[in-house]
Amino acid sequence: MLNETNVKLGKVRSSIRELFEYGKKRKAEIGEENVYDFSLGNPSVPAPPEVKAALSDLIENSDAVALHGYTSAQGDFKVRDKIAGYINKRFATSLDADCIYMTCGAAASLTITLNALVNEGDEVITFAPYFPEYKVFSEHAGAKLVAVQCEDETFQIDFAKLKAALSAKTKAVIMNSPNNPSGVVYGAECVKKLCALLKEHSKKTGEPVYLISDEPYRELVFDDGIKAPYIMNCYDRSIVCYSYSKSLSLPGERIGYIAVNNAMEEFSDVYAGICGAGRALGFVCAPNLFQQLVARVYDKTADISVYKNNRDTLLKALGEYGYTVVKPDGAFYLFVKSLEKDSKAFAERAKKYELLLVAGDDFGCGGYVRVSYCVSPEMLKRSLPAFKALAESYR
Amino acid sequence: MLNETNVKLGKVRSSIRELFEYGKKRKAEIGEENVYDFSLGNPSVPAPPEVKAALSDLIENSDAVALHGYTSAQGDFKVRDKIAGYINKRFATSLDADCIYMTCGAAASLTITLNALVNEGDEVITFAPYFPEYKVFSEHAGAKLVAVQCEDETFQIDFAKLKAALSAKTKAVIMNSPNNPSGVVYGAECVKKLCALLKEHSKKTGEPVYLISDEPYRELVFDDGIKAPYIMNCYDRSIVCYSYSKSLSLPGERIGYIAVNNAMEEFSDVYAGICGAGRALGFVCAPNLFQQLVARVYDKTADISVYKNNRDTLLKALGEYGYTVVKPDGAFYLFVKSLEKDSKAFAERAKKYELLLVAGDDFGCGGYVRVSYCVSPEMLKRSLPAFKALAESYR
Repeated sequence: MLNETNVKLGKVRSSIRELFEYGKKRKAEIGEENVYDFSLGNPSVPAPPEVKAALSDLIENSDAVALHGYTSAQGDFKVRDKIAGYINKRFATSLDADCIYMTCGAAASLTITLNALVNEGDEVITFAPYFPEYKVFSEHAGAKLVAVQCEDETFQIDFAKLKAALSAKTKAVIMNSPNNPSGVVYGAECVKKLCALLKEHSKKTGEPVYLISDEPYRELVFDDGIKAPYIMNCYDRSIVCYSYSKSLSLPGERIGYIAVNNAMEEFSDVYAGICGAGRALGFVCAPNLFQQLVARVYDKTADISVYKNNRDTLLKALGEYGYTVVKPDGAFYLFVKSLEKDSKAFAERAKKYELLLVAGDDFGCGGYVRVSYCVSPEMLKRSLPAFKALAESYR
Repeated sequence: MLNETNVKLGKVRSSIRELFEYGKKRKAEIGEENVYDFSLGNPSVPAPPEVKAALSDLIENSDAVALHGYTSAQGDFKVRDKIAGYINKRFATSLDADCIYMTCGAAASLTITLNALVNEGDEVITFAPYFPEYKVFSEHAGAKLVAVQCEDETFQIDFAKLKAALSAKTKAVIMNSPNNPSGVVYGAECVKKLCALLKEHSKKTGEPVYLISDEPYRELVFDDGIKAPYIMNCYDRSIVCYSYSKSLSLPGERIGYIAVNNAMEEFSDVYAGICGAGRALGFVCAPNLFQQLVARVYDKTADISVYKNNRDTLLKALGEYGYTVVKPDGAFYLFVKSLEKDSKAFAERAKKYELLLVAGDDFGCGGYVRVSYCVSPEMLKRSLPAFKALAESYR
């Protein structure tokens, strides 16, 4: 008998991928320009020009043995030093290179962190709607994922529900802001309240609770009013899982990091656990060329104004057509209320209008669909009549 | 409580890394040129010129969104198709793109494969001396690693011992040829005998046994006489774990693949298990730029004549000084008989002569030390008097 959990996981393609594959087929049938594919969270804006320049320079002018050689498992010291310095400057923290562990992107940041923290039978809490792989990652690490529904319509944390979900088994809480799929950003008040509640719970049970902040969309916040605090300044037992996939439009290159808050008492054990988990999972080191790259362009971003314009266009149009949309402050997702109770049926009906939308059920939150607007502005404009017709079909 | 297994794993640096760090300190004290560091298996020869040319071309002339975007989880179809075609041409197999799963290097190939195959309580057999991470990877996947000692002096498989180790719990056997740390290549007879024995055992127990061939050193075979058969032509339930780290001198870039033999009955389940395990461990896809790279240079190698010359120089000199060396046909390691019973004490004494050698104990095989000769020919020559003096100190 093979490992049935993993065989099953490999056979059931995620519904997002399923929809994407349907879209490819449909485009072949009726023409690329006639299908409005909002299924994937794949950046549509190219990497900033500094990426190309830095990659060219590294390849032309570095010693190949060093450039392509192993780095230490936690990443090249100079790279980690630069990143720590940047975080300190920007968020007034006191990290050093040895608080940073370079990874192959956000998924690796999460699996490594979870494998460092949890033991069989522990619980990991997250807020629904949530990125579906949190469940896969938590379960592989031996924990149960407990999803706490957000407040309806605002999609901020529902503290009464969170309180009820916390238990002596809670080892960690994963927060994801800006959120995939809701696009919501947790404001300062919300984050402070979350940290206070976790501290209180820890005090009561005597068990530490780690706050894992999954931040691939950190740079994709569109409204100047939004100033979410850096989690390390609010909570000692915090770990930031970062990825350059979205900010630098490098999702296929797998580069990111884990930053462990050195304010926590057991810092050295947690960091050691991360090193050990990275080793056991088979991540020898993050790709060296891309480590060297981010050491040069860590403060750059792709042109995110494209996403902001897409959001504004879509938000305005959908409002006019009678849709209810969760107020989105970041990422590149709109979470739109389904026009019928069953959001899977709604997403299915959308396909008749060649609109590919992902049912919220896949994110642990029925009644909504996710619209990934990391698409070309031209396609977005072409799709508006389809959104309109879909709404009218429900009148 | 954190995950103690991983915390411990992160705290205990491998003795190889420990020795490497000692070397760095020692070089700072007495000068780089006076320390003879044979500790790490880090390629010393640069990547072939085709690598630089292909990387430059990809970066200059590709669309950045596509070049740095996600590929499918198993890797870009065209890349997999090229690799399957190359394997077919070279080894007369009948693989297609969907037999190949691109990975972040050999370690990832192994952890993903093990997590696809094993269940809690299964056993994985390997042959000592062996790469120490096999134990870490097997245990994380839930299996026990059973090490079967090789024949003394020849370091070929000891079939009587293997027979005794096989049980109903045996899920997989990991073979590694050319071998790290012995440098030994298993010849055709040995491989055929291994396959026959595993088939016989499977037939008896009714339980499939998978043969995992860990082949990062496949291209590093120095003697024309050696023609090891491709494992897929001998055994249906075989899985090849490959990495371009050593052949293309790209160890830090993390690029390799898993090839699953489509001759096995349960092929689609095994491949699905690999896809599922890759997902659960947090490998979203292998780095896209390096996938595209290997699709262009899969048949190139770094200049391995440097390693062959190093081996010949060292072999001749050590023989003259009275050392006994396992006959090495590949990789870039010599396995040298310790001049005292305790090989740790021997490696410790070698440090007095500024020779950094790894005790065989770390590879599950005391009584020997590993000499990694992926070093500059100049350093190798400078080190010879130290090897001589070390031998003389035992007279």
